[in-house]
Amino acid sequence: MADKPKKPQKLRARLPRGLGDRGPADIAATRRMTDTIREVYERYGFEPVETPTMEFTDALGKFLPDQDRPNEGVFSFQDDDEQWISLRYDLTAPLARYVAEHWDALPKPYRSYRAGYVYRNEKPGPGRFRQFMQFDADTVGSASPAADAEMCMMAADAMEALGIPRGSYLVRVNNRKVLDGVLEAIGLGGEENTGRRLTVLRAIDKMDKFPVDEIKKLLGPGRWDGGEDGKGDFTKGAGLSVADAHVVLGVTEKRDDWNDAIAAADLYLSKSETGQAGVSELEEIAKLVRASGYGPDRINIDPSVVRGLEYYTGAVYEVELTLETKDEKGRPVRFGSVGGGGRYDGLVSRFRGEPVPATGFSIGVSRLQAALTLLGKIDTTPDFGPVVVTVFDRDRVADYQKMVASLRNAGIRAELYLGNPKNMGNQLKYADRRNSPCVIIQGSDEKATGEVMLKDLILGAGLSDLEGDRDTYLQKQAEAQTKIAENDLVSAVRKILDKHGVKWSS
Amino acid sequence: MADKPKKPQKLRARLPRGLGDRGPADIAATRRMTDTIREVYERYGFEPVETPTMEFTDALGKFLPDQDRPNEGVFSFQDDDEQWISLRYDLTAPLARYVAEHWDALPKPYRSYRAGYVYRNEKPGPGRFRQFMQFDADTVGSASPAADAEMCMMAADAMEALGIPRGSYLVRVNNRKVLDGVLEAIGLGGEENTGRRLTVLRAIDKMDKFPVDEIKKLLGPGRWDGGEDGKGDFTKGAGLSVADAHVVLGVTEKRDDWNDAIAAADLYLSKSETGQAGVSELEEIAKLVRASGYGPDRINIDPSVVRGLEYYTGAVYEVELTLETKDEKGRPVRFGSVGGGGRYDGLVSRFRGEPVPATGFSIGVSRLQAALTLLGKIDTTPDFGPVVVTVFDRDRVADYQKMVASLRNAGIRAELYLGNPKNMGNQLKYADRRNSPCVIIQGSDEKATGEVMLKDLILGAGLSDLEGDRDTYLQKQAEAQTKIAENDLVSAVRKILDKHGVKWSS
Repeated sequence: MADKPKKPQKLRARLPRGLGDRGPADIAATRRMTDTIREVYERYGFEPVETPTMEFTDALGKFLPDQDRPNEGVFSFQDDDEQWISLRYDLTAPLARYVAEHWDALPKPYRSYRAGYVYRNEKPGPGRFRQFMQFDADTVGSASPAADAEMCMMAADAMEALGIPRGSYLVRVNNRKVLDGVLEAIGLGGEENTGRRLTVLRAIDKMDKFPVDEIKKLLGPGRWDGGEDGKGDFTKGAGLSVADAHVVLGVTEKRDDWNDAIAAADLYLSKSETGQAGVSELEEIAKLVRASGYGPDRINIDPSVVRGLEYYTGAVYEVELTLETKDEKGRPVRFGSVGGGGRYDGLVSRFRGEPVPATGFSIGVSRLQAALTLLGKIDTTPDFGPVVVTVFDRDRVADYQKMVASLRNAGIRAELYLGNPKNMGNQLKYADRRNSPCVIIQGSDEKATGEVMLKDLILGAGLSDLEGDRDTYLQKQAEAQTKIAENDLVSAVRKILDKHGVKWSS
Repeated sequence: MADKPKKPQKLRARLPRGLGDRGPADIAATRRMTDTIREVYERYGFEPVETPTMEFTDALGKFLPDQDRPNEGVFSFQDDDEQWISLRYDLTAPLARYVAEHWDALPKPYRSYRAGYVYRNEKPGPGRFRQFMQFDADTVGSASPAADAEMCMMAADAMEALGIPRGSYLVRVNNRKVLDGVLEAIGLGGEENTGRRLTVLRAIDKMDKFPVDEIKKLLGPGRWDGGEDGKGDFTKGAGLSVADAHVVLGVTEKRDDWNDAIAAADLYLSKSETGQAGVSELEEIAKLVRASGYGPDRINIDPSVVRGLEYYTGAVYEVELTLETKDEKGRPVRFGSVGGGGRYDGLVSRFRGEPVPATGFSIGVSRLQAALTLLGKIDTTPDFGPVVVTVFDRDRVADYQKMVASLRNAGIRAELYLGNPKNMGNQLKYADRRNSPCVIIQGSDEKATGEVMLKDLILGAGLSDLEGDRDTYLQKQAEAQTKIAENDLVSAVRKILDKHGVKWSS
């Protein structure tokens, strides 16, 4: 059974596109990030909850992200009883199911957080993956703008805890009711205007990218990409009148002072009840965050924030990295959104049949990690590997294994060389590859005198860079390779680790 | 858009069978467990690597676990290019793909660990889930029995680090070559005997459960469940002759002394080259673990260990909890296997087209956690919740929010009450539900004098249990509810938290 005939053809080892493997530095960075975010979320009073990777497709609902793009979707399969199951595409829809299912047992408002992978069955691209990590917090059962204000402050705190200095990020806040008020004011309410509404929202969403004149084209007749010479692509406009476009821009245009932004929205939406409700919620959020000491350098009001997900019903917020960096070709890269969220009052009520106000915030951990890596803010220095006990004499593996055990019992990371021991050079090369702080060698000479040879690889690696006199070099070289009594092995290794600041547990 | 007409029918909030949600205590216990296991694996020199949740189905291969059971399988779907993708059903098959794909870039032997959820599309049952967590370590590129010995010692160390005392677990070691030798010795080699081989292996696998006489029946004519009166179920036997059954039992029967077990295998398999190779590998593993101080109370040789997965080719090991407990009905429960592994020399070579020796070990984290919970070895005391700042006067939410911010800035978990503030009783009930250490109240009286009311809920909860005189009671009651200057809020709250040993970060 162990020796089945070999297949002639080899299988190619590869992953489906949009998926990736992660090595030690990546994993360590994610752990540090999620530990930091968890600490901030807990300080805000949230408690952990975790739902499984998959849910009934109908429970995830029709709230698929950005449904208008053809390639977007979820990974789904049928169970043996023919019911459709999908991998979660975010952490909000499963939370809504969880809250509805455990409604009576939960404290209300219910405030919880969770981190996990989510899956999108869509066309992957640069920086766009089909599996990525999010870290969410949600308050379910509170209609208070204070719940939204908390999310915005927590977003700011999380960014700073992650090492992004004040001024290098911004939490931008808007309210869907303000945008709904705008659409209402220009007569785009009603089912029949869904398409044009979307075109207007897309134009508003470009406010960061294009100057106002270009946005005007997108709201009006349309826009030629790369000039009007007909060589670029044409984006069809929303066909708004000049007066209607003026209303849209009047509310959503960038303003330096957030008071102006609120005043403008208030003015243009004076006749829209929905718009007024949005303005007053925005004002309330601003008042609360300012009272807690969060100025417009951290949290600002910005009526041009749209956020793609269909399910938002009130406040929306987006965390943007305002830092710029250069890509490999030296072109400036702006990172943009690394998190966001908002109010989704309709998501839980699908199950409950009664209105359940809810608001949530999500950090795109994978996306933020990619950004922080590009910015050089992620420590990618590899950790030190284990102490390697080499195999000089293959009949004495049990003796070497015993040395390894004594090191481990003393809390030191250690391993026996497990490859083919015939060549000591290969063993030392392996230790180098593993970034080992030191190796241990015991040949017959050392065995005879009850000693072991200790090679300090960190010191040894520095030798070639050493400047100065020959005596220093020889002294260092001698230090880098010493014979010690086998009985002193643990303390001698500890001394080397301590000297180089390599951690070991006790 | 925010006010779509409500659907008349409610959706039922539920999960597909075999999947579950996890609350704070569960999540905290898993984190403590994985942190502990990670520390042990790292001490053994393994480094982390992570592969995605899904792989090409062909890369996971035909090595599906326990293929002979009809309901077992994997969750699969087709990509838009028609290629089949599956959720990983273990962490070994993806590792084999990873190692093959990154072969040239990896140090050899390649020693890595990873924890993650795996998915089985099978009939769930009690304690049997369709999503569960494993924590694996593998050494790829070493044929040395020392690599297997390391796995066994690491398994033992991990159990003890997790709080399972010596004597309450056992690592049982066998070698597939010993079992192959047995099958060869009784003439069951060759493709045509696959079915009978499986029946023999299943009988050996029952050695823990049944007395030897019952195993004899399973090896011979078959066995009636619950006596021979024809009322139980009949299990067809392997139809071995008495002499052949004697060989099988001679090798695999339980023996108190592992030296006897090895001697018996050596004797009965003297003519089988495969069997002899297995015996000598077992001897080598025994020698290595004994040299490192691991006695038969921790790691023992047991030729009855089979392990289900088809892909094992050499040493196999299983970690068993030997503790017994009672289920809800008072019946004794033996936990059995909570981890295991072995050599799978063929798994990487499917991609490489050349032999790649490999050995791995896996802890069933979810299964072990369930066992430890039943044994009362998991701390399920809920953590303290946040300090709750109540809303007495809803026009002064910004003031309360500011108090919350000052507590958080001092590293204290705190939140504003975000529910409907009309009823103070509900706010206090909420704080109780969240297991809050204290609440803060500021009505107009306190506001006028620049004070806040601090309610110590931990002390307050103890009041009703208080025995002794009325004065003590009144004194404690006064302590549990004190007025302090608003400026002293942070230090007063810290004092309460410190008094009760509630952690806060600085």
